[in-house]
Amino acid sequence: MTIDARKILTQSRRASRATALLSTAQKDQALAEFAREVVNQTESLLKANARDMKAAKGKISDVLLKRLELTPDKIQQIGKMISGVRDLEDPTGRTCRHLELDSGLILEQKTVPLGVLVVVFESRPDIIPQITSLVLKSGNTVVMKGGSEARATNLAFKKIWDDLAQRQTFLPRNWVQLVQGREEFRSLLKHHDLIDLVVPRGSNQLVQSVMKSTLAPVLGHADGICALYVHESAQLEQAIALIRDAKLQSPSTCNAIETVLIDAAIAEEFVAQLRAAHLPIEILSDRKIKKLWPSVKVAKEKDFHTEFGDARLAMKIVGDIDEAIEHINSHGSHHTDCIVAEDQGAQAAFVAQVDSASVMINASTRFADGFRYGLGAEVGISTAKIHVRGPAGLDSLVTTKNIVTGHGQIVADYVGPKARSFTHRKR
Amino acid sequence: MTIDARKILTQSRRASRATALLSTAQKDQALAEFAREVVNQTESLLKANARDMKAAKGKISDVLLKRLELTPDKIQQIGKMISGVRDLEDPTGRTCRHLELDSGLILEQKTVPLGVLVVVFESRPDIIPQITSLVLKSGNTVVMKGGSEARATNLAFKKIWDDLAQRQTFLPRNWVQLVQGREEFRSLLKHHDLIDLVVPRGSNQLVQSVMKSTLAPVLGHADGICALYVHESAQLEQAIALIRDAKLQSPSTCNAIETVLIDAAIAEEFVAQLRAAHLPIEILSDRKIKKLWPSVKVAKEKDFHTEFGDARLAMKIVGDIDEAIEHINSHGSHHTDCIVAEDQGAQAAFVAQVDSASVMINASTRFADGFRYGLGAEVGISTAKIHVRGPAGLDSLVTTKNIVTGHGQIVADYVGPKARSFTHRKR
Repeated sequence: MTIDARKILTQSRRASRATALLSTAQKDQALAEFAREVVNQTESLLKANARDMKAAKGKISDVLLKRLELTPDKIQQIGKMISGVRDLEDPTGRTCRHLELDSGLILEQKTVPLGVLVVVFESRPDIIPQITSLVLKSGNTVVMKGGSEARATNLAFKKIWDDLAQRQTFLPRNWVQLVQGREEFRSLLKHHDLIDLVVPRGSNQLVQSVMKSTLAPVLGHADGICALYVHESAQLEQAIALIRDAKLQSPSTCNAIETVLIDAAIAEEFVAQLRAAHLPIEILSDRKIKKLWPSVKVAKEKDFHTEFGDARLAMKIVGDIDEAIEHINSHGSHHTDCIVAEDQGAQAAFVAQVDSASVMINASTRFADGFRYGLGAEVGISTAKIHVRGPAGLDSLVTTKNIVTGHGQIVADYVGPKARSFTHRKR
Repeated sequence: MTIDARKILTQSRRASRATALLSTAQKDQALAEFAREVVNQTESLLKANARDMKAAKGKISDVLLKRLELTPDKIQQIGKMISGVRDLEDPTGRTCRHLELDSGLILEQKTVPLGVLVVVFESRPDIIPQITSLVLKSGNTVVMKGGSEARATNLAFKKIWDDLAQRQTFLPRNWVQLVQGREEFRSLLKHHDLIDLVVPRGSNQLVQSVMKSTLAPVLGHADGICALYVHESAQLEQAIALIRDAKLQSPSTCNAIETVLIDAAIAEEFVAQLRAAHLPIEILSDRKIKKLWPSVKVAKEKDFHTEFGDARLAMKIVGDIDEAIEHINSHGSHHTDCIVAEDQGAQAAFVAQVDSASVMINASTRFADGFRYGLGAEVGISTAKIHVRGPAGLDSLVTTKNIVTGHGQIVADYVGPKARSFTHRKR
């Protein structure tokens, strides 16, 4: 199937003029009905999901198969998640600045929806309800592409929205669109002039390939190479507990650590304790650690630039905190890094100089996500420095608009020898 | 001269670790001394500028030559501008969020410098003092490229900073760097991994070519195709005064209008009044207006997509406000657009649906700039929706960092049947 990408995006843009005009009450009403309908239609969702599961069996790994599966319990959770998004504060219509430029000439800067989002994701079937809820709450529209394994499930969720739009005439046609196929998706990305933000949800490979294929802004992170630094003032037992959590609690997630840096001053003692802890971790270390712990493997330089995504951990002794900071800034991915230290000067230096979206002091890197950060729902985690940095919630789906209201004021009156002055008075 | 772009940017990045650590007092002290030195060295600045003027004479237009020229009065103004930047609030170190995740586990989101900026500009010699002041106040570093016509003047300003850095040892080496030559500049842009933001200050051609040559984020706008819409409820005299100002007060600026849209209901009356006003504007109109005003030229479709930058103005009759909004969203550059209307419903519909960085109600589009918007100094005007939209000041040169402080908390305690709950209590 070939698609007319420009037509799809133009429809989405037209619909976005209508979604931007929806009141908070209308959006909340639609979300309440969506939550109810998702639960009401548990049976048809399970049926669609069973078709996907049957087709996928033997073709994808058991882990992925498990992730693809819907259960009555998961559907209940999805309903709650949608209600949770409904309960979040409307991110649009907020006043960021309100300034009198001159008597009777008022500047107001307000938050407004971004417009048209393009979201691509892999096989998790709960992404459609999550993304569409966030998109509607923020007054945007969306063109989505899901994994082919979840095709029937995705269509079943989309159908719930389509049926709702039949009943709720305030919902514009085409505010949610779903395309199938990789080539179809690629053709969308070429029309960057019609896209306000691309959100890839999935593997690093997916994110990287999206970033390379579009000039539209992309919210996300290509890598999660996170480090934990054990300062000489660290409580060593705490450091070991943090390494266990940050590496093993969920090794494949982006905020798991890949590197541990150890201050030379405490290296001998710490390595001995770590060895005694018998963590199920495969250590790739520098030669100094190898001397203290002969059974570990020796790391290659590239191991300090690698997101393993499993129980491997690169480990290195550093001379001081400066070397640790330098290593993290040059080898890491500016996502989330941790210092374990009791010394407050060391904590402050690390926080000030490590150039990452999240910096942890004596806390696991795994805390860096939208739910744990209290954002309600996560759009993604950004390692970019512009727009949004770190875990991104509903607020990342809006921009601002400057509105100047006058009664015929002209700039000519504010220049030259008899120029009027601006008052620039805050309101 | 070939340059080692990677080395220059790496030096800038290293220096940015130091500038990020400067206190507000240190930055303000350096800016006060810079302002004083610029005025003290009026004579050597004028001498350098005279060399540039002599070399440029006959090679560039008189307008550009005038812009290149420094005078004692202009240098005084530059000194005041630097002091003005010093007086702005430090944009770094502000707390955006402060949340207790759980007892003893605190999230703080703070503003921090972006890092390394690359700024390219054309011949105006006051840009170096302005940009360097904004860069230092926000704790960043900068690699600049100026116009070759202003080479000696630019070097003279740069030398003032270099001499200050000799005396003020808290200023790191290489926080300001200046490269010469177009090829040298292009080679910088290739190392997008080392650049946090590119700011092109100059013609549309310059901005467009920069946007096409780098994967780093670019703050700016390629076009300023602004429109003014005369609604049927407009005070017609006011509309004419606004057109005069928005088109003629400074025709070459990005916030000048290029298009006027007129409601059909009042077209006959308005065109008659506009004709009687004898504005020195060359009108390119649709055939309906041509019938009412036979002496105007007929516009081609491309005239409605063109930034004239001179006294030409494209003009068109529209059936209603929806057609006006549709025209602006599809033909304009999302920069600044104006409605002239007394009807508040029409004003609200225009504001809500015109997808532009600034929307004016009964006020000239020419008000859309950083100084008039009360930002103190303008970094640029952005038509992007992410990071910053519209006139961008000091705040556009910072990003945020999430800092989580705990005492050994691990995520494993927050999952599973005995999971601790997050408190997410605002502080």
